[in-house]
Amino acid sequence: MSSTYGEMLRLSIFGQSHGAAIGMTLDGIPAGLPVDFEGLQTFLNRRAPGQNDWSTPRREEDRPEFLSGIVDGYTCGAPIAAIIKNTNTRSGDYSNLKDCPRPGHADYTAQIKYKGYQDPAGGGHFSGRLTAPLCIAGGLCKQWLEQKGIRIGAHIEWLHGLNDTFFDRLNPQINEIPTDFPVLSEYKAQRMKEIIAEARAMGDSVGGTIECAVTGLPAGLGEPMFGGMESRIAQIVYGIPAVKSVEFGIGPSAANIPGSECNDEFCIQNGVVKTKTNNCGGILGGISNGMPLIFSATFKPTPSIARPQQTVNLRTGEITTLEIKGRHDPCIVPRAVPVVEAAAAIAIYDAYLEWKARK
Amino acid sequence: MSSTYGEMLRLSIFGQSHGAAIGMTLDGIPAGLPVDFEGLQTFLNRRAPGQNDWSTPRREEDRPEFLSGIVDGYTCGAPIAAIIKNTNTRSGDYSNLKDCPRPGHADYTAQIKYKGYQDPAGGGHFSGRLTAPLCIAGGLCKQWLEQKGIRIGAHIEWLHGLNDTFFDRLNPQINEIPTDFPVLSEYKAQRMKEIIAEARAMGDSVGGTIECAVTGLPAGLGEPMFGGMESRIAQIVYGIPAVKSVEFGIGPSAANIPGSECNDEFCIQNGVVKTKTNNCGGILGGISNGMPLIFSATFKPTPSIARPQQTVNLRTGEITTLEIKGRHDPCIVPRAVPVVEAAAAIAIYDAYLEWKARK
Amino acid sequence: MSSTYGEMLRLSIFGQSHGAAIGMTLDGIPAGLPVDFEGLQTFLNRRAPGQNDWSTPRREEDRPEFLSGIVDGYTCGAPIAAIIKNTNTRSGDYSNLKDCPRPGHADYTAQIKYKGYQDPAGGGHFSGRLTAPLCIAGGLCKQWLEQKGIRIGAHIEWLHGLNDTFFDRLNPQINEIPTDFPVLSEYKAQRMKEIIAEARAMGDSVGGTIECAVTGLPAGLGEPMFGGMESRIAQIVYGIPAVKSVEFGIGPSAANIPGSECNDEFCIQNGVVKTKTNNCGGILGGISNGMPLIFSATFKPTPSIARPQQTVNLRTGEITTLEIKGRHDPCIVPRAVPVVEAAAAIAIYDAYLEWKARK
Amino acid sequence: MSSTYGEMLRLSIFGQSHGAAIGMTLDGIPAGLPVDFEGLQTFLNRRAPGQNDWSTPRREEDRPEFLSGIVDGYTCGAPIAAIIKNTNTRSGDYSNLKDCPRPGHADYTAQIKYKGYQDPAGGGHFSGRLTAPLCIAGGLCKQWLEQKGIRIGAHIEWLHGLNDTFFDRLNPQINEIPTDFPVLSEYKAQRMKEIIAEARAMGDSVGGTIECAVTGLPAGLGEPMFGGMESRIAQIVYGIPAVKSVEFGIGPSAANIPGSECNDEFCIQNGVVKTKTNNCGGILGGISNGMPLIFSATFKPTPSIARPQQTVNLRTGEITTLEIKGRHDPCIVPRAVPVVEAAAAIAIYDAYLEWKARK
Repeated sequence: MSSTYGEMLRLSIFGQSHGAAIGMTLDGIPAGLPVDFEGLQTFLNRRAPGQNDWSTPRREEDRPEFLSGIVDGYTCGAPIAAIIKNTNTRSGDYSNLKDCPRPGHADYTAQIKYKGYQDPAGGGHFSGRLTAPLCIAGGLCKQWLEQKGIRIGAHIEWLHGLNDTFFDRLNPQINEIPTDFPVLSEYKAQRMKEIIAEARAMGDSVGGTIECAVTGLPAGLGEPMFGGMESRIAQIVYGIPAVKSVEFGIGPSAANIPGSECNDEFCIQNGVVKTKTNNCGGILGGISNGMPLIFSATFKPTPSIARPQQTVNLRTGEITTLEIKGRHDPCIVPRAVPVVEAAAAIAIYDAYLEWKARK
Repeated sequence: MSSTYGEMLRLSIFGQSHGAAIGMTLDGIPAGLPVDFEGLQTFLNRRAPGQNDWSTPRREEDRPEFLSGIVDGYTCGAPIAAIIKNTNTRSGDYSNLKDCPRPGHADYTAQIKYKGYQDPAGGGHFSGRLTAPLCIAGGLCKQWLEQKGIRIGAHIEWLHGLNDTFFDRLNPQINEIPTDFPVLSEYKAQRMKEIIAEARAMGDSVGGTIECAVTGLPAGLGEPMFGGMESRIAQIVYGIPAVKSVEFGIGPSAANIPGSECNDEFCIQNGVVKTKTNNCGGILGGISNGMPLIFSATFKPTPSIARPQQTVNLRTGEITTLEIKGRHDPCIVPRAVPVVEAAAAIAIYDAYLEWKARK
Repeated sequence: MSSTYGEMLRLSIFGQSHGAAIGMTLDGIPAGLPVDFEGLQTFLNRRAPGQNDWSTPRREEDRPEFLSGIVDGYTCGAPIAAIIKNTNTRSGDYSNLKDCPRPGHADYTAQIKYKGYQDPAGGGHFSGRLTAPLCIAGGLCKQWLEQKGIRIGAHIEWLHGLNDTFFDRLNPQINEIPTDFPVLSEYKAQRMKEIIAEARAMGDSVGGTIECAVTGLPAGLGEPMFGGMESRIAQIVYGIPAVKSVEFGIGPSAANIPGSECNDEFCIQNGVVKTKTNNCGGILGGISNGMPLIFSATFKPTPSIARPQQTVNLRTGEITTLEIKGRHDPCIVPRAVPVVEAAAAIAIYDAYLEWKARK
Repeated sequence: MSSTYGEMLRLSIFGQSHGAAIGMTLDGIPAGLPVDFEGLQTFLNRRAPGQNDWSTPRREEDRPEFLSGIVDGYTCGAPIAAIIKNTNTRSGDYSNLKDCPRPGHADYTAQIKYKGYQDPAGGGHFSGRLTAPLCIAGGLCKQWLEQKGIRIGAHIEWLHGLNDTFFDRLNPQINEIPTDFPVLSEYKAQRMKEIIAEARAMGDSVGGTIECAVTGLPAGLGEPMFGGMESRIAQIVYGIPAVKSVEFGIGPSAANIPGSECNDEFCIQNGVVKTKTNNCGGILGGISNGMPLIFSATFKPTPSIARPQQTVNLRTGEITTLEIKGRHDPCIVPRAVPVVEAAAAIAIYDAYLEWKARK
């Protein structure tokens, strides 16, 4: 069901890139949960563009306006609604997107699906800008999970073939991730910034992989089969534009090692059942096993590039060359890190509520 | 919501490995669709064990008994229900699974989640056996899609580090896949069988990756954000036990190439808009673009291995060594190939019905 | 979504009147709940036909066969599936129902909707027989609610214009309802039986209203707007064939009295907040207020009558006269009483699980 | 799921009576549907208060601000979001509602459910004001249905025991209903206004029943069992505050007449299959039969009355007398007429989309 997610909570995201406003409603949240607005803004700023020199110099104000659901700093049980108004709306620069779809974007599929009625400006509802309301919902869920000792952190695992220090899957270093450029190794961070600067200089773009860890998660969350933690997380993470791979634990490497190596043996630590390794990423049978939950998501390079690309004029049927003007992120991966955390927070908070119901 | 999937169709899977029966209900299917029972049985046989020497010698009869929803070979509009009776039920061999959870299995998480009330026999509801009803539903959807010219085929892409010929993403070779051992290259097939035989001989197991392609899919299927084709397919594929990675198109490799290479440029072929490459796996903005839809899923090695493994006796808290008896598949990947096709068929048929509603 | 109900639990009902079997799956039930099979059978017998002389002399065995979800008398956390096999299947007596739809039945609408592919035998999926699996699910939920002190009882409030003693809405007499013929007043019970016998003798049928009460329900169940207790109960009760009205508390009489009389004033009894009257039927703003929840459902007369009726031959377009043969209930109301209780139990148990999640 | 409704469309309503804004998101609407903003405003004005002398003199501007989903007067396929800003927000007059719940309101149940965190001002999320966003969604659906020849009209059937001319169920007079005071009989309209004026003068309130008809509905809409038209309509109509009864066709009168009278015999008119009577309200087996769909909903008297009422001070446990100040509608029924039409339009448009999917 399109832009709606969740079982116990129900998140609905709306808006187009250059429309009047983007926003979200988040229904099904218990009453009495505190909201730290300042902390939320700090979280949203991590996604906002124009805060540094490796992202687009466009400056958008990602200041949510809460319309409902929160009274005197606490959730009141009613659906939470928040919007972010667009300051520079539908300028008309994008009018030819309907005719000449940009490679790698949803322009063509939107044109087919919506028969020309879609909002083409800035990608419309398919714009990465829609991850801002996702971060509002996710930022709130993240706060509420933290109060239960469940913490979520992500870093850039790979950027254009260069890897950061990997998470220790038994004890992921989520406390050591810098907020301005979320990479564990200072040296690798520097190199990654250079790669991005180089891509910008060349009018090109680069992709990367984000690794996300959840600690403090109790065992028992998730439901069997299609309600498993992997299914829940994958569904929402694939809702983020540009994601092309979602992996858990050792992911595709599970195809390379024998069962005797892949299986995580059980042990006891301070009276608590643990596993000696964490190849499964904290999930067995779809259900959290009490170890850190670890997953990765790969983002393709930003499709908006300055270099000339071939496309088809859908009206005339002619091949044409497209040069995308404007200032675009040569790499969205740094800004996508909080988005992945937000998606994980929503999926986990949803599973947490469902778990409570059947405990 | 646990063992239930779908928007327009509603699939509900039930049963435990050694219970009276396993089965499924499939609600929301249009009336008047023909059912080829023989074709379905042929499809189910591809998943059934004991048909050859690289899988477990246990012989199960996977003959579905249809209880409702089909009259005189056509769907009648009412929910379709089918069961497979278990011939050897709850023998009692698995009684100690509650105390000593098997590494890599859901024994431990089930014990925590269900407080000891779970059915431990053969993994209960978490057993791979539950993919049989998934194949009933998927086998039916696959037939109905074929009538619309939408075809689905999968092969073993990787097996324990060894790769088959990859799909040509512009024109995937789904007609060339042998049904008995679904590998394109005869030479690689032979080597893979040897790897499996070797794993068996060593009391170990191996994993692999399955690549799946869908051809003939019209452009426009899928909904934005969480209703995108990737979200839909990932949710159901992650419902298959042992899956640890789901990737679309070039998947994680998207992190290694620049946007100018990753973007699929548009072209015209016989008056139809196509892309010159298919790195995106036939999906842009979550919506099918008319090119073949391509995805991969990685299965970890079978967790049931004969080799001694350490676990914890949950009752006594003592470390204990577990040796899993019985005849288990040293590699489930060959039998999982039709399961991946089934999952894809269900997700696509669901999206197809939704697409029809809003056309 | 057709034959599926519920938020936290997911009930799916399948089967056609004369198909191989009818049944249900009930997903999302917590593990560890005891099942009293004997008590369940006693409950199901209240719905089963042929147990007395005011219902159809057809004898069906409504003995559910549980296929999954229950181990050693306790729910195991996996979906519960149960079937009732049909002993006399598709005899062929009903072949002309497609051509000549019976007035008051779903024959015509099924023919249009399913384009002639529907199962016409005995009404197919629209048969009242499908309330048997509803009673399996509801009978289980009723047991689980009883363990929490929540009790559900219903009686025939009206039968063909004759009323039973009404429930005292502050203290409904659910313990005083006889199980064989669920009417509070012995005198009225006798009269009602006479009405039914008379209808049978005349080849006609009569309808009635069932009043249902739920006691011991804590305040706070239900969600605002479309998730309110009225919405939840009405949705499932209207899923029972022949229901044409669902009312809460004083129902339509609320249109006749002023607010000063309709409002239930609050008071304190033994330190507990109560209302002095219970015109609202225990629900304010969609949420239970701790008073007994009271609702009524009206069933139209059985549409199958022996008397000649006019219909249209859909093939020829000619008006034709129909005389329905066979032995049909002249009044389904007595047998529908446990069905209404079952529906209420399912709706309330679903709301209870949701309430637990957000407490 | 609380304030969310629908299968194919997904309506989510948010806001509190005195919050920053109320609004709705409507997801799942096809692209390319025209929007008549002026017609929508005319529809919304029928619900808005202060337009005449039989409703509250408070004047609220119910002018929706559309944030997304509509471009150049056509739906663009993305979720539609609209808000109505509140001009006089949280004045603080309602602070003691948490302690002393008003009889007939949701104050008490909200206090229990949300543990004191609810927004008490003006009833918060339980306020009748939330029917304004319902009317935005419903007004749009109503326009789109009209383009397909499906028309919806409602009138006051009963007001405090006084009835209007009833609908001719074979040919309901929806074109003859005046928009200012929706009553068919001029004489009855006058009398009803007097009743309302009298109630106001006495500081009391009155209730009523609204009868709604849908014409031009094709046969075949609705799904079996819980997806039937009655279930769908009842679920949404019971989401409107103050509704205590929802009936279809002859409703509870079905309990008073024999089957031979209640059954609607089939006939042919101009080659179209019709029924001679329409006791079933256009629905058989949950599915529309092509005749006008007719239902009624009863609204209890406005619970806010000036007369002194007893309540309990929840903090002190003492009985206290409450006198509700402010200017309240002595009868919400006239303003509820478009709300019922809106609810019907949403339910039917949802069913229409689902029907298209499986045709």
